[in-house]
Amino acid sequence: MKSGHVKIDWVYRFMPLLKSIEEEYGPQKPLKELRIGMSIHLEAKTARLALLLRDLGAEVIVTGSNPLSTQDDVAEALRERGLTVYAKRTEDERVYMDNIKKVLTTQPHLILDDGADLTVTAHTEYQEALKNLRGVTEETTTGLRRFRALHKKGLLKVPVIAVNDAFTKHLFDNRYGTGQSTWDSIMRNTNLNVAGKIAVVCGYGWCGKGIAMRARGLGARVIVTEVDPVKALEAVMDGFEVMKISQAAKLGDFFITATGNTKVISEKEFLEMKDGAILANAGHFDVEVDVRALERICVEKYEARPNVTAYRLANGKVLYLLAQGRLVNLAAADGHPVEIMDLSFAVQALSLIHLAKTNLEPGVYPVPSHIDEKIARMKLASMKIEIDELSEEQRSYLENY
Amino acid sequence: MKSGHVKIDWVYRFMPLLKSIEEEYGPQKPLKELRIGMSIHLEAKTARLALLLRDLGAEVIVTGSNPLSTQDDVAEALRERGLTVYAKRTEDERVYMDNIKKVLTTQPHLILDDGADLTVTAHTEYQEALKNLRGVTEETTTGLRRFRALHKKGLLKVPVIAVNDAFTKHLFDNRYGTGQSTWDSIMRNTNLNVAGKIAVVCGYGWCGKGIAMRARGLGARVIVTEVDPVKALEAVMDGFEVMKISQAAKLGDFFITATGNTKVISEKEFLEMKDGAILANAGHFDVEVDVRALERICVEKYEARPNVTAYRLANGKVLYLLAQGRLVNLAAADGHPVEIMDLSFAVQALSLIHLAKTNLEPGVYPVPSHIDEKIARMKLASMKIEIDELSEEQRSYLENY
Amino acid sequence: MKSGHVKIDWVYRFMPLLKSIEEEYGPQKPLKELRIGMSIHLEAKTARLALLLRDLGAEVIVTGSNPLSTQDDVAEALRERGLTVYAKRTEDERVYMDNIKKVLTTQPHLILDDGADLTVTAHTEYQEALKNLRGVTEETTTGLRRFRALHKKGLLKVPVIAVNDAFTKHLFDNRYGTGQSTWDSIMRNTNLNVAGKIAVVCGYGWCGKGIAMRARGLGARVIVTEVDPVKALEAVMDGFEVMKISQAAKLGDFFITATGNTKVISEKEFLEMKDGAILANAGHFDVEVDVRALERICVEKYEARPNVTAYRLANGKVLYLLAQGRLVNLAAADGHPVEIMDLSFAVQALSLIHLAKTNLEPGVYPVPSHIDEKIARMKLASMKIEIDELSEEQRSYLENY
Amino acid sequence: MKSGHVKIDWVYRFMPLLKSIEEEYGPQKPLKELRIGMSIHLEAKTARLALLLRDLGAEVIVTGSNPLSTQDDVAEALRERGLTVYAKRTEDERVYMDNIKKVLTTQPHLILDDGADLTVTAHTEYQEALKNLRGVTEETTTGLRRFRALHKKGLLKVPVIAVNDAFTKHLFDNRYGTGQSTWDSIMRNTNLNVAGKIAVVCGYGWCGKGIAMRARGLGARVIVTEVDPVKALEAVMDGFEVMKISQAAKLGDFFITATGNTKVISEKEFLEMKDGAILANAGHFDVEVDVRALERICVEKYEARPNVTAYRLANGKVLYLLAQGRLVNLAAADGHPVEIMDLSFAVQALSLIHLAKTNLEPGVYPVPSHIDEKIARMKLASMKIEIDELSEEQRSYLENY
Repeated sequence: MKSGHVKIDWVYRFMPLLKSIEEEYGPQKPLKELRIGMSIHLEAKTARLALLLRDLGAEVIVTGSNPLSTQDDVAEALRERGLTVYAKRTEDERVYMDNIKKVLTTQPHLILDDGADLTVTAHTEYQEALKNLRGVTEETTTGLRRFRALHKKGLLKVPVIAVNDAFTKHLFDNRYGTGQSTWDSIMRNTNLNVAGKIAVVCGYGWCGKGIAMRARGLGARVIVTEVDPVKALEAVMDGFEVMKISQAAKLGDFFITATGNTKVISEKEFLEMKDGAILANAGHFDVEVDVRALERICVEKYEARPNVTAYRLANGKVLYLLAQGRLVNLAAADGHPVEIMDLSFAVQALSLIHLAKTNLEPGVYPVPSHIDEKIARMKLASMKIEIDELSEEQRSYLENY
Repeated sequence: MKSGHVKIDWVYRFMPLLKSIEEEYGPQKPLKELRIGMSIHLEAKTARLALLLRDLGAEVIVTGSNPLSTQDDVAEALRERGLTVYAKRTEDERVYMDNIKKVLTTQPHLILDDGADLTVTAHTEYQEALKNLRGVTEETTTGLRRFRALHKKGLLKVPVIAVNDAFTKHLFDNRYGTGQSTWDSIMRNTNLNVAGKIAVVCGYGWCGKGIAMRARGLGARVIVTEVDPVKALEAVMDGFEVMKISQAAKLGDFFITATGNTKVISEKEFLEMKDGAILANAGHFDVEVDVRALERICVEKYEARPNVTAYRLANGKVLYLLAQGRLVNLAAADGHPVEIMDLSFAVQALSLIHLAKTNLEPGVYPVPSHIDEKIARMKLASMKIEIDELSEEQRSYLENY
Repeated sequence: MKSGHVKIDWVYRFMPLLKSIEEEYGPQKPLKELRIGMSIHLEAKTARLALLLRDLGAEVIVTGSNPLSTQDDVAEALRERGLTVYAKRTEDERVYMDNIKKVLTTQPHLILDDGADLTVTAHTEYQEALKNLRGVTEETTTGLRRFRALHKKGLLKVPVIAVNDAFTKHLFDNRYGTGQSTWDSIMRNTNLNVAGKIAVVCGYGWCGKGIAMRARGLGARVIVTEVDPVKALEAVMDGFEVMKISQAAKLGDFFITATGNTKVISEKEFLEMKDGAILANAGHFDVEVDVRALERICVEKYEARPNVTAYRLANGKVLYLLAQGRLVNLAAADGHPVEIMDLSFAVQALSLIHLAKTNLEPGVYPVPSHIDEKIARMKLASMKIEIDELSEEQRSYLENY
Repeated sequence: MKSGHVKIDWVYRFMPLLKSIEEEYGPQKPLKELRIGMSIHLEAKTARLALLLRDLGAEVIVTGSNPLSTQDDVAEALRERGLTVYAKRTEDERVYMDNIKKVLTTQPHLILDDGADLTVTAHTEYQEALKNLRGVTEETTTGLRRFRALHKKGLLKVPVIAVNDAFTKHLFDNRYGTGQSTWDSIMRNTNLNVAGKIAVVCGYGWCGKGIAMRARGLGARVIVTEVDPVKALEAVMDGFEVMKISQAAKLGDFFITATGNTKVISEKEFLEMKDGAILANAGHFDVEVDVRALERICVEKYEARPNVTAYRLANGKVLYLLAQGRLVNLAAADGHPVEIMDLSFAVQALSLIHLAKTNLEPGVYPVPSHIDEKIARMKLASMKIEIDELSEEQRSYLENY
């Protein structure tokens, strides 16, 4: 069997929620006669989701959500299973945008977006794509920020379901998923020791919390940087050191960004860093570590290991950038663990089914809470975990006391 | 110096935020000509808050919020410093309610409530107390639940500020405060080992999270029980075992409730427990461990240590209940750590100042976000921790990209 | 029932190993016709051990091993149960030594020592006490160091069993016991928050490891100081910061010593500390925090809370010393958790039985490994934990492959 | 540059101790005129050690210590740098033994062994190799067990230095090295989530402790199995569940063996396991998971992912075995982190220098403690960490008090 199919078959076994949805909804084909444009990090787990949507009745057209995160063998396997796929790992940014547009040309009824590139392009350069569009589901914090900015300016033309904001998504994916997969990627790409090292985590949102928690779990001493004083205080109480990035720059062995912002680590910091410091980004876009500044100030640049670029600075020190500053867990490893994506993608699938049968005004909507609860119960059941139910007396106490 | 004053002087030194507020607002006397009724667990830290409110210009009348949590020496010290105090540790429930009413008789302009007993009584048995009342601040999850239930029925007559919901309150007080002080109380009252024992934590809200986190930090194996599937799943992902209380009953060495609900552990569970099991409640009311059922089914009852009541059951086993099932950290120890209460009480003080200068309709209101941010910044400053500020470019990126 | 008896009854229930030994050996009276001098921190758990030794046939004479760690109600209860007790909490050093001598006057056949004061005095000031003496068991690292120094000089006249070195003693008592009880004492005596604070742990032996582990478990940021480079490196790899005490002095909120050495924190460090720093000693003798230097350099000294002495320095800062620099978990709390002492005291009891039936040359001897294994098996059985047994094939593999 | 050289250059930068040794001892050539036979897991870090020994004057002949752990590109790079290398990844067991014998044919003066295959073969099938042999250094627990068994039978003909027993080796390599690299390998080869899963760790020696600690650090619920009651009790006190493998078999999602024994998980357990269970071995030999039993009882076998073999049993369940049951961190990942091996290999290098200048009787010797201390100091210095020194007064206190 070819590698793309082997990969997809592996994840099938560890995504019980998608299987349950297939079994429960498959016979009704709730997405039939709908064309879905998907912009995703194309690897085995997202491929599994694409196949589920197809099996729920949809016509599915797939593109990447990040040039480097596409796995070509998986793309090929999806094509062999009958989906339309416009994605390739080696593409440059222009090719990436061309593929985005190819998806839009099909005038999809629904968009499953990851970072908002597909939908934002439909609102700007390629507005005919809005014609059929009935709704969008968005996977990431970053994408939602973009949609909300768009809506604030009165420019959003479709309803967007904030998949990322579902409890069963962001509480798990951003924290446990990003936490594990970021360190998986750093370890496999560097073979360096984590215990006893200093890990600087920029941002203490759910992703940063997960990265910091796992850094400690691997034995690192953790420093957190933040701009939000409440989150900064939370990091302090969690036992981490908190300081400015300008102070942390001198101390860190590993630097990981997860802020959703730009130029979090830049020239000034690079010049202060220790020889051999490792730089990685776990945020959606490749702007958190200021790669352009690195390119500008380095005196030499070379490939130190696969996925590791060495930048020698004029001060003689060498900094190592993982995955060119792109999402380190996706561009240089296999992304979130399978079971975590099973949770997130169950939210996606049920949200798309929800969009297919409702008619919403433009705006950004939360995932209905019954979806969250349903998914959590499905997941617990798949783990054979039973929980308590409120008794009548308890329910009444909560309401009336 | 008498013990009440010694206790108050000690906490003074470790409550830098109240001191900062005193320095910043004291000269303006923003609470002058206002009478504040306080219902609180009366010990050194709440005494410090009462003194601050007095120094901000208010006339302060103090009562307890739980019969067993009043420390008489502190009450005495407050009286000696000129406050009116109606509270005593040895009081029975009737005396407790009498004191509540004594406070209401003064017709306060503002109420600082902890569990809502004071304000609820003003809405029911003693409605003349509503005459001057301009607003309430409520400290606990439990109290807010009661206020929201009241408001839903259209019965709430005053604006209530949800102090508990402030980030700088519930993220810190409920989690780190309850977490530490619950175990402090269990350890000091039992002298039992925690490492290697099985701790059953009922409820995985912020309090339960804190108690579970510290149980693990002390070396226990932790079992969580929940009724909410999302929280249950979160506990699983945090590495805890999750099961029904009926299963956990057979396994636990320590049982701690923090649900806000009633009869979380009851007769059926008591009969399944191991000989020597320890029962403690960390929720607001003494109904979580079903003490009446214990009293009913026991064949013998005796004081095993101070604050530890032994119940011998007909099956020969002995269960030990701490603090008669009341809030274990308050009724059998010193409550939350000083610095944690400094945070919460800074929210209280600034919320009361806010109420004093605004005019709100009846309802439950969040703490204004500028108060949260101000307090977090004050706290970081008191720890000499500096954090990053967004650059113009970053701010613009977040808004426009 | 009087408080001493209540305390002893409580620990009875949580010391299953001593109970098992009583049941297994009691009928044979293996210690009959032997007089045992015990020097111990006299509280409920050691009282339970004394009663076991009596029930194994011995005549038991008890004194303290530290002036401040004697609980008078327990001493009284022991007397009421027929033992001879020379110990009192309020005694001064001279009274303490007098009591030591009173025990020696009885010319015991066996000594159970804790810190070596009793036996060392028998070798120096009161040598007639050596006449009947057939052997000694020593509880602490500190005591063993003294015995080994004595033996190196050729002065040791009796065999000493190194109870502390038994796996079931030092792996558990020093680590889990000291770890929990030190923080229990600090929390109950200060009511201060641990999460987010900086805890400086001096010494990374088994005690220091336990204290550091629990400090982290309570949310502190931990700094370790060491003189041994291998232990220092281990602390680094465990994720702790390691530095000199001179650097740590400026940073710490809590300082805890557990080195077995003298003047670990002294004048130079005191002068660098932050206002409000808390000082505690978890080592055997009260010389680790240099209390004399504190007394000399302070401009004011007062009782800030029970067990907390405030020292105001000329630089205006106030340092708080717990328990006068004595063992903080014993002098200002209830010592190790009950179940931990059950393990250690099982080693004591079986070692004394071993001494009673063997005839050894002077020297320091390890606890026979069969005792260690027996105790570990007894403890697992008491927790209803079953473990694997080697198969014949596995045993042969280990020996022959 | 070819991949083998790139890999070696990468590790050079993160092995400061080997560099320090090169700088300190290189000029003296302490190993000149000595031929060293090395049996090692041949990858970049061991290659770096081989190059150091060459630079210290030795003639170095290299073979593997495990058929699957050889990286061919690194072997090639070593050949290109002038060393003699007899090792290949795809070799079968016979080829492996042939290579062992090729090294012995050169009649080395010193052997650096990893698992004892090279030296044991020299004592059995190829005794002429003993002629020049002056000493051996052994890296692993398993190898030392074999040497001690040999010595007990009077068959050991050379002195062996127990590198594994050095503090700077086993406290770090077995615990932090195996801990991290085992999970790195499991995560990269499966892409499965660890948080919320049940990890069964067989063996609670230093390796097992490390694996269990990291499993918890990654969010797993951990079950430990042991045959030694003291270690079992330690695992309990560390907060882990302890039970028999027969009970754990039904519960685990991941099973990792690290016992040094054979058939730790075998047919009886396989039949009880959950569908989808993952099996991995972190012990030296591939006998801990009983692969032969798996082969015998499976009804289908296929490659599920690279390094993951699926075994479908007659009960319909599929078990996944990583790396064919060989050392999972070496055979299916990059082995221990670079810096950890730097510590271990510093012990190797200084032990070989020690052997070169001393003349020892056959036997198993500890690493001299001055080597341990020197290495720890070198490592701390490389991290710019300063530690305290004993004062004269303190040294005297420790000796005389």
